[in-house]
Amino acid sequence: MTDIAMIEAARARLDGHVRRTPLLSSPFLDEIAGRRIFVKPECLQHTGSFKFRGAWSAISGLSPEARAKGVIAFSSGNHAQGVALAAKLHGIPAVIIMPSDAPRIKIENTRAYGAEVVLFDRATEDRDAIGARLSAERDLTLVRPFDEPLVIAGQGTAGLEIAEQAAELGIDKADVLVPTGGGGFISGVSLALAAKAPGLTVHPCEPEGFDDVTRSLASGKIEKNARQSGSLCDAIITPQPGNITFPIMSKLCGAGLVVTEDEALKAMALAFSRLKIVVEPGGAVALAAALFHGETLGDTVIAVCSGGNVDGDIFRMALERNPD
Amino acid sequence: MTDIAMIEAARARLDGHVRRTPLLSSPFLDEIAGRRIFVKPECLQHTGSFKFRGAWSAISGLSPEARAKGVIAFSSGNHAQGVALAAKLHGIPAVIIMPSDAPRIKIENTRAYGAEVVLFDRATEDRDAIGARLSAERDLTLVRPFDEPLVIAGQGTAGLEIAEQAAELGIDKADVLVPTGGGGFISGVSLALAAKAPGLTVHPCEPEGFDDVTRSLASGKIEKNARQSGSLCDAIITPQPGNITFPIMSKLCGAGLVVTEDEALKAMALAFSRLKIVVEPGGAVALAAALFHGETLGDTVIAVCSGGNVDGDIFRMALERNPD
Repeated sequence: MTDIAMIEAARARLDGHVRRTPLLSSPFLDEIAGRRIFVKPECLQHTGSFKFRGAWSAISGLSPEARAKGVIAFSSGNHAQGVALAAKLHGIPAVIIMPSDAPRIKIENTRAYGAEVVLFDRATEDRDAIGARLSAERDLTLVRPFDEPLVIAGQGTAGLEIAEQAAELGIDKADVLVPTGGGGFISGVSLALAAKAPGLTVHPCEPEGFDDVTRSLASGKIEKNARQSGSLCDAIITPQPGNITFPIMSKLCGAGLVVTEDEALKAMALAFSRLKIVVEPGGAVALAAALFHGETLGDTVIAVCSGGNVDGDIFRMALERNPD
Repeated sequence: MTDIAMIEAARARLDGHVRRTPLLSSPFLDEIAGRRIFVKPECLQHTGSFKFRGAWSAISGLSPEARAKGVIAFSSGNHAQGVALAAKLHGIPAVIIMPSDAPRIKIENTRAYGAEVVLFDRATEDRDAIGARLSAERDLTLVRPFDEPLVIAGQGTAGLEIAEQAAELGIDKADVLVPTGGGGFISGVSLALAAKAPGLTVHPCEPEGFDDVTRSLASGKIEKNARQSGSLCDAIITPQPGNITFPIMSKLCGAGLVVTEDEALKAMALAFSRLKIVVEPGGAVALAAALFHGETLGDTVIAVCSGGNVDGDIFRMALERNPD
């Protein structure tokens, strides 16, 4: 089970390999939100998302023997790129099983990072069966995207940074908003903050129609999404909270926040014009919640922008629909 | 005259007020360039450009009496925003004289940062006369955009960061490429690196048709641009090198590099897709030089992206012309 000691151990393994992303802000965003907003731009992380942290943590945490044989992962994109680059930098093979409708740039980048990409059809093929066969044939270690203690520990290193950066700014009370799919990122961040900055309350943020975590936290049991695809926020679409992550979120997180796709696109346009960062739709839901759904939040909000891997045409659409 | 002691004094005044921007990189950019490229994204600085450093340095360096009366500046945009916000945060008035054809977002932002904006027509009006009249009437201190030792000292703080970040990466020899208009930024960076990282060689980068600094360094005397406007790279268009900055550049800089507007737009698109940062055309000329004109450079390049204040329609054009 991931705890603060595991997160600190992950940080030691990640040191010199991941970026310490800054905290950004803009008086224009504060004005829109009616409160102070800080943004943690994990889109600036290697491979364009926080996923590189967890991937590095998982791979660096394997035994040398297991690591040498290689790793395998299932991912619609950001986890894929994180695992691919972390594997490449460790000099080991990586097989990534991706849905054939994942954003083109994510598939191409995963290949370019040196991984072997195996595509499957979400509607007709069983990715677990494909994965099991490949794992058995080649003795690969599966790196789960979120329900994996070493991955959660790696994501938690972003929480350690937030705790330090908040302290540098004199912030001891704030709401921390995190885009949430399966819950690995928010679980790691919540564990880190509970230990290092207990005045900071973490909230999951999700797109409308894919708010399984928000509903699960409200009902106290794991709830599923009705749909599995069809959102621009593809990076954070998962069927339901994880078996490991849900208890952590239940214990440590505040209520979830839900935003529309239009609000996510508007947040992308504001991140462009006010912060000069590129955020993908799923990565922008926490900033969107901070900007447009802050009623229940306190006077200081730290919104994580979790990734920036967005095709140019979708980014252009976000700017076109939301002229400055 | 600006020296390393002035830069270090500026850094002490800037501490806690400016962002230490990270160094970014991507294996995809390294591959295009055929060498290792690091990017210093000053677009992530407050107000979206390095100009905030010099503005803060100049205003914080005034006597309390002079400061209280307020400041005045001429600028097509980024210097305007830097001075406006630095003045606002010091609680003093700022008057900014801007050409009426400056990018709309820069005019609006300068007003939103609390400055009084006075527009003039580049073709028919004498901005210096307007400025002189307002300064005399209100006893305002002029903050020059580049030919001002305190401003150069403030810009030099980015050079101190580059020296430290290069040392952290074990880099003791590299070419440092800096987008250059009047030369204040590159002068400050050159002075800082000459003192702290003498193995790093600084090169000015300019757009085709506005390469006054490159030609001046080559001929050994101040050369002018034939045109004063008409470039997408508006942020770095000045008539000629400064009287204070030219001797510094002559002494410390390597040869200049010149890129086309198309190359600057292509660099913007690559900064979008590979680094997840927003860079304006003028701010992208150093990255463009690193990517497309590296023949004369060594195996490690640090390219500064100096600003990100670009209208959405120009950014969309850059992405549309350069699909991933």
